[in-house]
Amino acid sequence: MRIIVDGMGGDHAPAEVVKGCVEATKFTEHTIILIGDETLLHKELDKYPKAKKRIQVVHASEVITMEDAPVRAIRSKKDSSMVKGLNMVKNGEGDIFISAGNSGALMAGGIFILGRIRGVERPAIAATYPILGKGVCLLVDSGANAECRANNLLEFAVMGNIYMERVLGKSNPRVGLVNIGVEETKGTAMLQSAYQLLKNNNGLNFIGNVEAREVPLGGCDVAVCDGFVGNILLKTTEGMGKSVSALLKARLMETLRSKMGALVLAPQLAAIKKEFDYSEYGGAPILGVRGAVVKMHGSSKANAVKNTILKAIPYAEQGVVATMEEAIARIEEDTCVE
Amino acid sequence: MRIIVDGMGGDHAPAEVVKGCVEATKFTEHTIILIGDETLLHKELDKYPKAKKRIQVVHASEVITMEDAPVRAIRSKKDSSMVKGLNMVKNGEGDIFISAGNSGALMAGGIFILGRIRGVERPAIAATYPILGKGVCLLVDSGANAECRANNLLEFAVMGNIYMERVLGKSNPRVGLVNIGVEETKGTAMLQSAYQLLKNNNGLNFIGNVEAREVPLGGCDVAVCDGFVGNILLKTTEGMGKSVSALLKARLMETLRSKMGALVLAPQLAAIKKEFDYSEYGGAPILGVRGAVVKMHGSSKANAVKNTILKAIPYAEQGVVATMEEAIARIEEDTCVE
Repeated sequence: MRIIVDGMGGDHAPAEVVKGCVEATKFTEHTIILIGDETLLHKELDKYPKAKKRIQVVHASEVITMEDAPVRAIRSKKDSSMVKGLNMVKNGEGDIFISAGNSGALMAGGIFILGRIRGVERPAIAATYPILGKGVCLLVDSGANAECRANNLLEFAVMGNIYMERVLGKSNPRVGLVNIGVEETKGTAMLQSAYQLLKNNNGLNFIGNVEAREVPLGGCDVAVCDGFVGNILLKTTEGMGKSVSALLKARLMETLRSKMGALVLAPQLAAIKKEFDYSEYGGAPILGVRGAVVKMHGSSKANAVKNTILKAIPYAEQGVVATMEEAIARIEEDTCVE
Repeated sequence: MRIIVDGMGGDHAPAEVVKGCVEATKFTEHTIILIGDETLLHKELDKYPKAKKRIQVVHASEVITMEDAPVRAIRSKKDSSMVKGLNMVKNGEGDIFISAGNSGALMAGGIFILGRIRGVERPAIAATYPILGKGVCLLVDSGANAECRANNLLEFAVMGNIYMERVLGKSNPRVGLVNIGVEETKGTAMLQSAYQLLKNNNGLNFIGNVEAREVPLGGCDVAVCDGFVGNILLKTTEGMGKSVSALLKARLMETLRSKMGALVLAPQLAAIKKEFDYSEYGGAPILGVRGAVVKMHGSSKANAVKNTILKAIPYAEQGVVATMEEAIARIEEDTCVE
């Protein structure tokens, strides 16, 4: 299997991306292909003489930046690492494309270059949302589509269900609809319709509405929502995590005695810190395009790059996208509207 | 000043509500009036022989329960503690009404009995959102109106601004619009219109869009959003708080050594626990009705009741509702649409 990594995307590219690829080679036999400015990439790779022969480099002369307008960038920067990487997936020269670059451009590129899965109106970004001490929940859509229709949410659920089962390894995942109350009459008219579509789909283990408070507590395995709600949920969690960490740190450094206590608790505090560390949880797949594409956090460092690569392997190797295509094609017969 | 407290509302009424009122008498000279079943209330009050003469009891023979349909309950249970309490505010027999009862009924009762402030289309519930270690932010709407128009958000901002300044004591509060990005073109068409209305209002210190991650970090003093977004933000925070607490507890109890560390850190852990404790932060005012009404959490115990009463005092005593009425009346001249 060939894993293509965008060597130029993200705040710490190429150095940390290259380092992350090198780290990943210690845990996987699969081929890793770095795409980007070959001079820069080789310069970084030369720091790791043992690992460098395990990593291929494909040259791309252009870079899509965070400031680029997504659609225009994809159309005009034909020799960018992102466009070239996506084309390699399309042409069967690679099995997955991973990038920490411009999210909008990655989504637009996925749609224009790989195409949408037939029947999917809106591809989504599915975040792997950490449940402290209990693994992850898949939050889909986590921010790509601010406004959605009920059928979009059904598509998110069907694809998210497959990703959770096949890539993240949770069998028969509990699918919940994020809403402001548990009763099926809660929320907007759109959510009420989505509830009915999810309830009537035979392929889903739909557990009904879940309130946002249940998501961090592990109340479902796949949390379905529009991208606006997904963004609010994810960003609130991120902010809370930062806020709690700052509070803990300040309190533990308060007095000499508290510093001693913190020293005694060092192993536990390290474990807690690790739970909060997004770089442990892998990247966010773009669901609904005809190929495996994974978005990494823009500020990813080597550890996040390594984990994203390793956790993405089952996405590329098991024909997950093909399974999604089949499930989406069956969506109407699977959903018996009363 | 006369503070009316619903003796029958909430999961722990009347015992904890009565106890909370008794605690409050230690910190305020204002009159506290408990409303509800007088036999039950006197029975509870008899437990506090010293404080009981400081608390008046007004009898109400009916109770609105959590299961009651809000509008029907307000219309049919004329002798309930909630309807009677709101009528007392309307008739000038009390300056504020505080209840831990059915939120929907309290909102409906506020609207039917006290009436809406002229110019306010949708009253809102404003939550006092805890910023760990840094006080509170006012989140408005926190759940009353799942779908809003741009002018509703402007009204929330104008009222929330006054509440933050006059009741919570923050001068010139920073008003932010909760959105999925900071640029003024972000979000739905409704939010883009709301952005312009807030930006063009002279009475507000509008700091622009704030992402949800900034809210727990104290990025604004008044966070304006529709009730759906407010609910997601608030409930995610609640769930994260619970999840973090559980993780901390589990880790600290892990080994003998970690238990010792926890013992050393006892004062800091207690302080952290207190930061997470919603009962410290006071209740949620219903903004937009012609009287001071405050909702307490349904599971409020004595400490939450006491704090809600004490923190609500400036709401009742300073003519805050009258100031809101004036500001809403001026809203069109204050908002110069370009």
